This record gives sequence, C-alpha cells and structure tokens, in this order.
Amino acid sequence: MGTIRREGPVCTGNPQRLYVWDLPMKLDAEWITGFVDGEGCFHIGINRHSDLKCGFQVLPEFTVVQHERDVKLLHALKDYFECGVVRTNHGDRWAYRVRSKKHLLQRIIPFFVMHPLKSEKREDFEKFHGVLRLMEAGEHLTTAGVNNVRCLTAQMNRGRSR
Amino acid sequence: MGTIRREGPVCTGNPQRLYVWDLPMKLDAEWITGFVDGEGCFHIGINRHSDLKCGFQVLPEFTVVQHERDVKLLHALKDYFECGVVRTNHGDRWAYRVRSKKHLLQRIIPFFVMHPLKSEKREDFEKFHGVLRLMEAGEHLTTAGVNNVRCLTAQMNRGRSR
Repeated sequence: MGTIRREGPVCTGNPQRLYVWDLPMKLDAEWITGFVDGEGCFHIGINRHSDLKCGFQVLPEFTVVQHERDVKLLHALKDYFECGVVRTNHGDRWAYRVRSKKHLLQRIIPFFVMHPLKSEKREDFEKFHGVLRLMEAGEHLTTAGVNNVRCLTAQMNRGRSR
Repeated sequence: MGTIRREGPVCTGNPQRLYVWDLPMKLDAEWITGFVDGEGCFHIGINRHSDLKCGFQVLPEFTVVQHERDVKLLHALKDYFECGVVRTNHGDRWAYRVRSKKHLLQRIIPFFVMHPLKSEKREDFEKFHGVLRLMEAGEHLTTAGVNNVRCLTAQMNRGRSR
C-alpha cells in the first residue's frame, strides 16, 4: 500500500510537448483523508436475496465520485490502496469503488483508523466499520445479524447524496 | 498561519459528558489541499460599478461551502489561515470565504503555491493567481486590465457549481 503502479506512461496529447508524460500521481495520506472528507462515501446496501437463508444480502461499499476531468485522482486512489475499480458512474462522472469485504477490512478501514476523518463523515465510517466487523464474524448471514446491520446503518449518510 | 486560536472552549452539549470540551481542530496542510481539491472554489466576479473609471469592479473570492453539520471544519480553516469569515450561505449550508485582496495575496495564494492542488481545480487556481497579480499591479482599474481579467477567467470553474 502506498506505492504507485501504472501499466505505462500516457502521452499528454499536447503536440507542443511531445516528450512530456503524465507521470503517476503520488498521494499523501493526509491529502486522501481531506479529499475523502469532501468527496468520499461509506455506504451499506441491504438487498433482498432469496438464495440466502436470512433473505437479505449486505453490500458494503466505499466510493469516491469525480467528474471525468479528474479521473486521474480516482486511479491514484486505486494505485494507493491497491484494490477496487475505477468505472463510469453516470453521465460524465466516474467512481472509484471498493466492494470486496477483504479489501475493505484489510486496506480501506485500517487506513481511516490510522488517519481519522475530520468531518461528520467519520460517524458514517464508524458505523461502516461496525458492520464490517459483524460481517467478519459472519453475523450478516443471520436474520438477527441483518437487523443489527439495519440498526447501525439507519443513521448513515443522512441528508447526504451518494 | 498554522496555529489554532478560538475564543474559548465550547461545551459539547452532551449531558453524559459534562466536562468534555470541543477542542480546537488542528489541520494538516495536506489535509487542507485534499479537502479544497474536493470542496473549494476560486472565483473571480466582475460586476458593473459606475463609480469606477473603467466601469467594472473585479471581486476575487476563495470559498469552501459545507453543510451546517461540518461548520467546525470551516472555522478550523479560518483559524488556520487567520483570515476570512464563516457565514451562512443558503439553506443549511455555510461558507468560509476570503475576499480581501491582501489576505488572498499574503495567505491563501502562498499556501496553494507551497501545497499544490492535485485536481483540475489547480488550473482555476493558476488563473486566480494571475488575476491577483494583475490586481496587485493595479491593472484591474483600467479597461484593458479588466479585459485581461475577463480573458483569464473565461475558462474558470467550467461545468462546476460554486
């Protein structure tokens, strides 16, 4: 975590600067915290799922959405955390998205424990962290566990758009 | 710049924690850069002003807008930069705003020269910086100078809401 990988350099497309390459962007941990305080979202989806015994599937998700002009920032986050995907979101917006329970538990959550958010989004993160701990213990697979998840997520992202 | 001042401690209002105070928030420069990459705005207003010889007034402004739940972040920015004001914006939004030419030139601009933005907002900042340099030289008081300001600002904040 923290090193920058990229498949190869990308030409800037500026014909006046033919040999200038768009170098990988190095992110600082505190910059990431500030940026996520502004632009990040910790979300827990709970979807009906008839194949599961408890009838519901719990879907945690960390996302950062940007206009396409700043898609390089989303790739830099992906490079930093070494997990997740960068995909189109809707219209001219792109999203960096981490949904893997393993990556959330091993990379995203430890980062924000180490570098706490300063905005009220930290409360969302604490609940998100709580849900992931329940999931780690397998409790999201029981009806009681899903109810606990509902309880934790009831106050998340209140009044905020995703 | 960088030290945190506050008139006095503020009670959290939690009756369970009567002696816990809301301590001043210490901001890291890289956190500020990340947060402003997400939430900040560099804007140049050009208003008609019949009292001025050139007929126009140039109004530079650095703002960060937040929901009222995070107004403490705006106060922390004000404390950090030791300039500007925190005021209601509209509805449940608040704004940290710096309009003073002196404070923009002496505090805001040097900070973002030292800690460059990583998003495309940096291009807005560069044009904002260019306009402030013209203002420092008094060029915004001539018709030719206002036209130069218009030229610099034509491409600012394109497609972004303020």
